[in-house]
Amino acid sequence: MIEAGTHWADGSLLAPPPWIQPHASTLPATGAWRPGDPLGQRQFMRMAVDRPFVLAGGGQLHDITVAFETWGKLSPQADNAILVCHALTGDSHAAGPADAGHAAPGWWDDLIGPGKALDTERWFVVCANVLGGCQGTSGPASPLPDRLGHYGPHFPVVTIRDIVRTQARLADALRIDRWHAVIGGSMGGMQALEWAIMYPDRVDRLVPMATCTAATAQQIAWWSTGRRAIALDPKWRDGHYYDAKPGDGPHAGLALARMISQVTFRSDDVFTDRFGREPVEPLGGTFEMWQRFEVERYLDYHGAKLSRRFDANSYLLLTKAMDLHDVGRGRGGEAAALKRISAPTLSVGINSDILYPSYQQLDLADGIEAVGGSATYVEIDSPHGHDAFLIAIDQVAAALVPFLEKPVR
Amino acid sequence: MIEAGTHWADGSLLAPPPWIQPHASTLPATGAWRPGDPLGQRQFMRMAVDRPFVLAGGGQLHDITVAFETWGKLSPQADNAILVCHALTGDSHAAGPADAGHAAPGWWDDLIGPGKALDTERWFVVCANVLGGCQGTSGPASPLPDRLGHYGPHFPVVTIRDIVRTQARLADALRIDRWHAVIGGSMGGMQALEWAIMYPDRVDRLVPMATCTAATAQQIAWWSTGRRAIALDPKWRDGHYYDAKPGDGPHAGLALARMISQVTFRSDDVFTDRFGREPVEPLGGTFEMWQRFEVERYLDYHGAKLSRRFDANSYLLLTKAMDLHDVGRGRGGEAAALKRISAPTLSVGINSDILYPSYQQLDLADGIEAVGGSATYVEIDSPHGHDAFLIAIDQVAAALVPFLEKPVR
Repeated sequence: MIEAGTHWADGSLLAPPPWIQPHASTLPATGAWRPGDPLGQRQFMRMAVDRPFVLAGGGQLHDITVAFETWGKLSPQADNAILVCHALTGDSHAAGPADAGHAAPGWWDDLIGPGKALDTERWFVVCANVLGGCQGTSGPASPLPDRLGHYGPHFPVVTIRDIVRTQARLADALRIDRWHAVIGGSMGGMQALEWAIMYPDRVDRLVPMATCTAATAQQIAWWSTGRRAIALDPKWRDGHYYDAKPGDGPHAGLALARMISQVTFRSDDVFTDRFGREPVEPLGGTFEMWQRFEVERYLDYHGAKLSRRFDANSYLLLTKAMDLHDVGRGRGGEAAALKRISAPTLSVGINSDILYPSYQQLDLADGIEAVGGSATYVEIDSPHGHDAFLIAIDQVAAALVPFLEKPVR
Repeated sequence: MIEAGTHWADGSLLAPPPWIQPHASTLPATGAWRPGDPLGQRQFMRMAVDRPFVLAGGGQLHDITVAFETWGKLSPQADNAILVCHALTGDSHAAGPADAGHAAPGWWDDLIGPGKALDTERWFVVCANVLGGCQGTSGPASPLPDRLGHYGPHFPVVTIRDIVRTQARLADALRIDRWHAVIGGSMGGMQALEWAIMYPDRVDRLVPMATCTAATAQQIAWWSTGRRAIALDPKWRDGHYYDAKPGDGPHAGLALARMISQVTFRSDDVFTDRFGREPVEPLGGTFEMWQRFEVERYLDYHGAKLSRRFDANSYLLLTKAMDLHDVGRGRGGEAAALKRISAPTLSVGINSDILYPSYQQLDLADGIEAVGGSATYVEIDSPHGHDAFLIAIDQVAAALVPFLEKPVR
C-alpha cells in the first residue's frame, strides 16, 4: 500500500498544472489577426473577384485578400524589388519594430532595413502573408465573404504553388514584372523555389535556405504529429472554434504542436549548452511527475507564445502545404522542374539543421547544375539548427550581399 | 466565397478520421497486464511486505510484485546468470514465441535462445518488467493492495535506481550473487549502468547500448512532448481512467506520444527508403487535410499498436524516470559515479541514432577509462537509428559474444 499522507492528497502534482494547458483563461479562441484588429504596417490587396481562384488541390476560393508589407521605394524601372517569403509561423512583418499590429519586431529585422544587408535605401523589399495563413491574408480564420461565420475547416487545402500564385498577383498589382531576387528560408524557401520554377521570367536571383525540393518522409512525420496534437485537443472541435469564448480555443493542442516542432528547429548541442539538466526548481527530496526541467519550461513558453499569435487551423493547413511540397509533382519529376529555373541560385544550408538537413540544399544545388543551371551552395556554420537562418544573420548577410550584386545576364 | 458543393458537405475529410483517435470502440482503458489475464511465461516475485520500499524520489511503496521471465538453467554455482534489461515499452518477454500472455515474440528473440548469441543452453537469462511498468510488475495500473481501485496517478515517481533495486531483490530471491553480465539498450542501458554503479560487486560485465549517463535537454524535450500528448487527451482524466468503459481510455494521447517517439527511434534515411513520399491513396485531383502519406499510416499503426498493449500512466512514469536518469546525481558527479564501476564495459553506440547519439556511448567509454576503468566502444553501423539495437542483431551479437567470453579477473 501507499503510505497514507505521503502520496495522497498531499499537494503533490498529480495532474499537470495549468502551464501545460497554457493561459486557458482569457485568450481569444484564435491568435489570428482579424478585421478590426490594429493594422500595423499591413497593406492589403484584394484579388479579382470576378473569377474563382482554382487551387492546385482542387478547391476554389473567391475574393482573396493578401496582406503584405513593403520597405524602401520601388524604382521607376521597377528593377529593385526583392521578395522575401516567410516561414510557417512568420507573417508579412519581416522588418521593422513591433507595432500596434505586431507584438514583436520583424522576423528578419536584423537583415532588412536602411544600411542593413537588404538595404531598404536601395531595395524595395516586399513580404506577403501566405494564403491559408492567419495574419491578414485569407485563411481559415477569415470571415466568410458571403455569409456569417468563418472558413474554419472548410478552407480548402492549399499548396506552396497556390501561395506563390497569390504572390504573383500581388507582384502584378505592384507593377513588379521581375524580382531582383526571391529569398526565403524553410517554408519560405519552398515558395522561393516554386517562384523560380513557375515564373522563371520573373525571378532574376533565387535564394532558398534551409529547405527542400520535396518534403521527406521524416519531415512529413514531424509535421503530422503536430497536426494530430491539434486534432487531439477537444477544444479544436474539428476546426469549429472561432465562436468559442475566450480561453476555450485549441491553445493546448497548438502549443503542443509547436513544442514538437521547436525541438526540430534547434539542436542537441544548443539545448545542452543552454538548458543542460537544470530543473526549474531544485529537485529536492521529492520528485514529482510534473516538475519541469528548464528545457520543458522553454518548450512550454514557446508553445504558449505561438498559441497567442497563431491559428490552429492555419497550422494544419500550412504544415499540410509543406508536406505536399514536391517541385517534381505534375512536371515530369524533379530534374524537369529544376530545368525550368533560369535564375542563378544561391542555395543555403545549415550544418546543424536536423529538420531540413543540409544535404537537401546541397542536392538542390547539384540538381540545378546537373540540368544546366547555375547554383552555388553555401553552408551556414552554426550550432542553432534549423532556426539559424533567423539567428546567424551575419552569415546569411555575408552570403546574400555579394550574390545580390552579381550581374545575371 | 467557397464554391457551394465543392468544400461543404461533400464528404471531404474535414475532421480527422477515426485512425487519428485509434480504435476507440472496444479497447480496455489500459493495455496493461492485469491480474487474471493469461500469465504466459511470466513468473512473479513478491517483495518483502514487512517494510516500506523507499524510493529515490521520496515516495514509498509496500507489497511490490516483480514479474520476470527466465530462460536456460542456473548452474549450481550460480555463475552463468545474465540480466537483460528492457527499454521503455518492452517487458519481461525478451525471448520466446508469442504466448497467451504476450501478443508478440520476445523483443530480443533473435538474440536469446538455444544456440543463439545469448545461448540459453549455457546461460541463465533473466528479464524483469520494470517497476512502474505495466506488464506484471507493480505500476500505476496495479490494483491497490489495501483498498479498492488502482494506483493511477498516485503511483510515486520512480527512478532508474529504484527499478534496479527491485531487480537486486529479484537476484537475491533467485540466489544470484553476481551477474556474468548485465545488458540493456536505451532505458535498459540506463538500468545496466546503474547496476554496475550501485552494485559493483554483483556485475562482472556491463553492456550498455544506445543509452546515456544522463538525459540531455533534447532527450528530456522529446519525452516531455509525449507526456504532454497524454495529458492533452481528455480521456486521460488526470490519470484516473482505469474504470473507464472500453474505448474510453487515453488511447489517442498515448498513441500520439508513441508517434512522436517513433520518429526519434528511426532515421531520415530509413524513412526515405521505406516510405518516401508515397500517399496511402493516390492524391488524385483533390487534396484533403487528412489524407495520409504512407509514413503517417506507419506512425498511426505504431501509435495504435502501443495503445493496445501499454498503459498511459506507465508511459508518463517511465519517460520521467529516463529524464531523471543522471548517474552523477548525489554521487559527486559523473566521474565519481563511473569510478564505482568495476566491471569491464562494452559500450555500444549506433551511428544513425538521433535520440541517443553515439557520442554519448563514446563519452561513456572515455569516462570509464578516464577514471581507471576498462571500457571498449563498439559502433553498430546501421541506417535504422536508435532501434538498431533491436534490429541489427548480427552486429549486437558479434560484439557481445566475444565480450561475454573474456575472463574478467
